[in-house]
Amino acid sequence: MRESIESSTRLARRHSPSARRLAAPPLVALLLCASASALGWDELVEKQVFEMETYTSTGGETIAPLRIGWEAYGELNEAKDNAILITHFFSGTSHAAGRYAEDDAAPGYWDAIIGPGKPLDTDEYYIIASDTLVNLNAHDPNVTTTGPATTNPETGEPWGTDFPLVTIRDFVEVQKALLESQGIERLHAVMGASMGALQAYEWASAYPERVERLIPVIGGGVSDPWLLATLGAWAAPIRLDANWNGGDYYDGEPPLDGLRESLKLVTLNANHWQWANATFDRSWADEDADPTRELEARYAIEQTLDDIAASRAELADANHLLYLVKANQAFITGHGDSLEEGLARIEAPTLILYSEDDLVFAPQGVRQTAELIEADGTEVELVSLEGNRGHLDGVVAIDQAGDRIRSFLAE
Amino acid sequence: MRESIESSTRLARRHSPSARRLAAPPLVALLLCASASALGWDELVEKQVFEMETYTSTGGETIAPLRIGWEAYGELNEAKDNAILITHFFSGTSHAAGRYAEDDAAPGYWDAIIGPGKPLDTDEYYIIASDTLVNLNAHDPNVTTTGPATTNPETGEPWGTDFPLVTIRDFVEVQKALLESQGIERLHAVMGASMGALQAYEWASAYPERVERLIPVIGGGVSDPWLLATLGAWAAPIRLDANWNGGDYYDGEPPLDGLRESLKLVTLNANHWQWANATFDRSWADEDADPTRELEARYAIEQTLDDIAASRAELADANHLLYLVKANQAFITGHGDSLEEGLARIEAPTLILYSEDDLVFAPQGVRQTAELIEADGTEVELVSLEGNRGHLDGVVAIDQAGDRIRSFLAE
Repeated sequence: MRESIESSTRLARRHSPSARRLAAPPLVALLLCASASALGWDELVEKQVFEMETYTSTGGETIAPLRIGWEAYGELNEAKDNAILITHFFSGTSHAAGRYAEDDAAPGYWDAIIGPGKPLDTDEYYIIASDTLVNLNAHDPNVTTTGPATTNPETGEPWGTDFPLVTIRDFVEVQKALLESQGIERLHAVMGASMGALQAYEWASAYPERVERLIPVIGGGVSDPWLLATLGAWAAPIRLDANWNGGDYYDGEPPLDGLRESLKLVTLNANHWQWANATFDRSWADEDADPTRELEARYAIEQTLDDIAASRAELADANHLLYLVKANQAFITGHGDSLEEGLARIEAPTLILYSEDDLVFAPQGVRQTAELIEADGTEVELVSLEGNRGHLDGVVAIDQAGDRIRSFLAE
Repeated sequence: MRESIESSTRLARRHSPSARRLAAPPLVALLLCASASALGWDELVEKQVFEMETYTSTGGETIAPLRIGWEAYGELNEAKDNAILITHFFSGTSHAAGRYAEDDAAPGYWDAIIGPGKPLDTDEYYIIASDTLVNLNAHDPNVTTTGPATTNPETGEPWGTDFPLVTIRDFVEVQKALLESQGIERLHAVMGASMGALQAYEWASAYPERVERLIPVIGGGVSDPWLLATLGAWAAPIRLDANWNGGDYYDGEPPLDGLRESLKLVTLNANHWQWANATFDRSWADEDADPTRELEARYAIEQTLDDIAASRAELADANHLLYLVKANQAFITGHGDSLEEGLARIEAPTLILYSEDDLVFAPQGVRQTAELIEADGTEVELVSLEGNRGHLDGVVAIDQAGDRIRSFLAE
C-alpha cells in the first residue's frame, strides 16, 4: 500500500494499483461507460470491505460470515447527515465513480454525475456504494461479495447452491448494517439504476424514517411478468451448459459458455434497436468468413456482443447470476403481498428517471409505480431520459438529468 | 383418402385425417392463433407436395431431389391470373387457413382473412402457400421440407450440416417453380408476415413483371443489425446443448433442451411487454413451489413459455432453426449489395402492414423500406397495426387490416 500521489484536501485515500487495477475491456467501455472525458471524482478510490460475523436472511437462513465491498466519494460530515447511498444494477458493482488507479481505462459507471461540483457533489455529500450479496462479478478483484462462490467456513468448500436464496430486502439490510457501522442513521438520498432502483424503493418503503429523498432510475416497484420472463431467459443458457452441473462446478470447469450466452442476452435486452442500428451495420466479423456462406461465420454485431460477454464472463460467476435472477424476480416493494401497500409506505419525495424505450422495465410499470407512491400525497416527479440505448440510458446517459438531480438533492 | 364431407362447389379437396391431423397444443393456440370463432376457409385442406428432381441454390450448390409441401384455398381460374401467394414466417408453415380435419384444434394462422367472402376471398382468388426449404417444423406430419434433417439420397443419411446454406431468394425460386408447375406466370399479389415479408419483397424485386401487388407484413427490406443480433441469440441455445454435436445428432439424441430455449426466445422476442403484463401476473407455476424460496421453482409465465417451447420443439429440428437464422440474417432485398437498388426494382403497388411496437423488425427499418420503394414513384402505403403483441400482431391481429387488404386487392 502507498499513499495516493493525488493531493487530497478532503479525504486521504490509498490504493494498491497492482492488486486493484482492473483493465476495463474496451468493448465494455463502448457499451457501458459514459464519456470518459467528463470530469468526475478526481481522487483515487479505495475499495473497502464490510464484514458481519453473522447475518440472518429474510428467509431465516444464516450466512456467517458475510462480507461485502464498498467505496465512498466525499467526506461524511460530523452530523453524519450528508450521506447518499448508491445501489448498483444487475451486472454492476459498487464502483459508481472515480478510478482505482490513474491509468484505469474507465471510471465508475456514474462518474458523469458524481464528483466535486457535479450533481452528486462530493464537496457537499458523502456518496457511498456497496457491492450486493451474490454480486455477479464475484471474480473481479475490486469486488467483495458473499454468495455461492464464497467458501462456506463450515465446510471449507464454496457454498454452491447451498447458499440461501437472498432478496433485494437482504441487500438493503446489509447496506443498513454497513451504514450503521459508520454511524449513519439517515440518508440524504438513496439512488440506484435498474436493480439499484429496486433497492432504492425497498429502502424507502422499509425504512421511511431513514430516507429523505428517493431517486430510482430505470426501474419499477415490482418485477412484472415481462421481467419475470426476461430474467428467466437470462438464466436459461447457464442451465444448458453441461458444466453447470446443477450448480456444483467449483471443483471443475465453470459453465463459461452458458454464462457468456446469459451475459449476451443481458447486454442485448438492456439495449434497444435504435442503438444497434445506429452503431452497427451489416459488416462481417471477419472479412474472410462470409456469414451467408459459412454456418460458423458471424456478423460484426454478433462478434461484438460475444466479445463483451466473454470479457464480462471472466469476472462473473454463473451461480451468482442465477441468484441475482431469483432476487430480482422475487422483488415487490415492501417485501409483502401488495404493491400498493409497499409503495404507500414510501414517504420520501421521489424523483424517478426512466426511459420510454426501456425493454427491461416497461414504462407502464414505472408510471404505475409513480402513481402508487403519489396516491397518499407523497411528492413524485417522473423524468423521461432520452437516448438510443433504451434501459441503458439510465446508466450511460444519466448526465442529461444532472441539473434536475442536483436541484432535487437541494430541495 | 376419402372425399371431404363438406360440400364443395368450387374445388374438391381430400384429406387423410389419420396421417394429417395435427393437434395444435392449446398453449400455442393461446399465443399464436387468431380467434377460432372467426369463419374462414370452410372446406378441409389437403396438404400436397411439390418435387423438383434437382435444384441449384443461389450459392451454386445442388439439392436433389427437393420437396416442399403446399396447400391452396379457392380455385385457379382459367386465365390463371387470380393467384395470391402467401409466404410464411420463421416458425410457420404453409398452413395459412382452414383445417386439415374438422376437429383440428385451430385453423391456419391467417384464417381470419382467408376464406369465402373474407378479404382474401376464396370465391375470387386462388390462395396458395408453400412450406419453405429448411422449414423449422421438419417433424410436423403436415409439413414437407428439404433441409439438414432430410435424407440425402447420395449417402442415405440425413444431410446434417452438409446441406447447403440457402437464402430467402432460394425460397422464392422454389415457389416460382411450384407456381410454374401450375401454369401461374403472374401473381395477383404476394403477401407474407415477418420472414414471409422478406420473401414477398424478394419476389417483387427479383420478378417485378410477375408481381402485381405486394403486401409485406411486420417485416423490412433488410435484416438490420438489431435483427442480426436477435437471430444470433436465437441460435445460441442450440449450440450450447451438448447433444447438438456440431449439427451431427441424427443418429442419437437431438438437442431438445437447446431447441426449447431457442424457441422460447423466439416467442418472447416476437411478443411485447404489453402482452406479457396484460396476460400474466406474478402467479407461481406450482402453488406448492415458491420461486422466491426454491432455486428450481418458476413463475407461471416462465412455465407457460417453457410449455409452448416444448410443444413446438417436438415438431421442430434444431439444424433447421440454425439454417433459418442464416437465411434471415443474410437477407437484403434484391440479394445484392445495395438495399436501395433492390427495393428500387419493386414496381408493384405496395401495402405494408407493421407494428410500432415490433421488437423484431424495428419500425424505423420498415419506414425506410417504404421510402426506398417509393423513391422512384412506386405507390406505397404504410398501415400501422394496433394491439399488445408487438411483432405478433401481424399474425394474430391481422383481421383489423382486413378491409384495407380487401380494397387493395381490388385496386
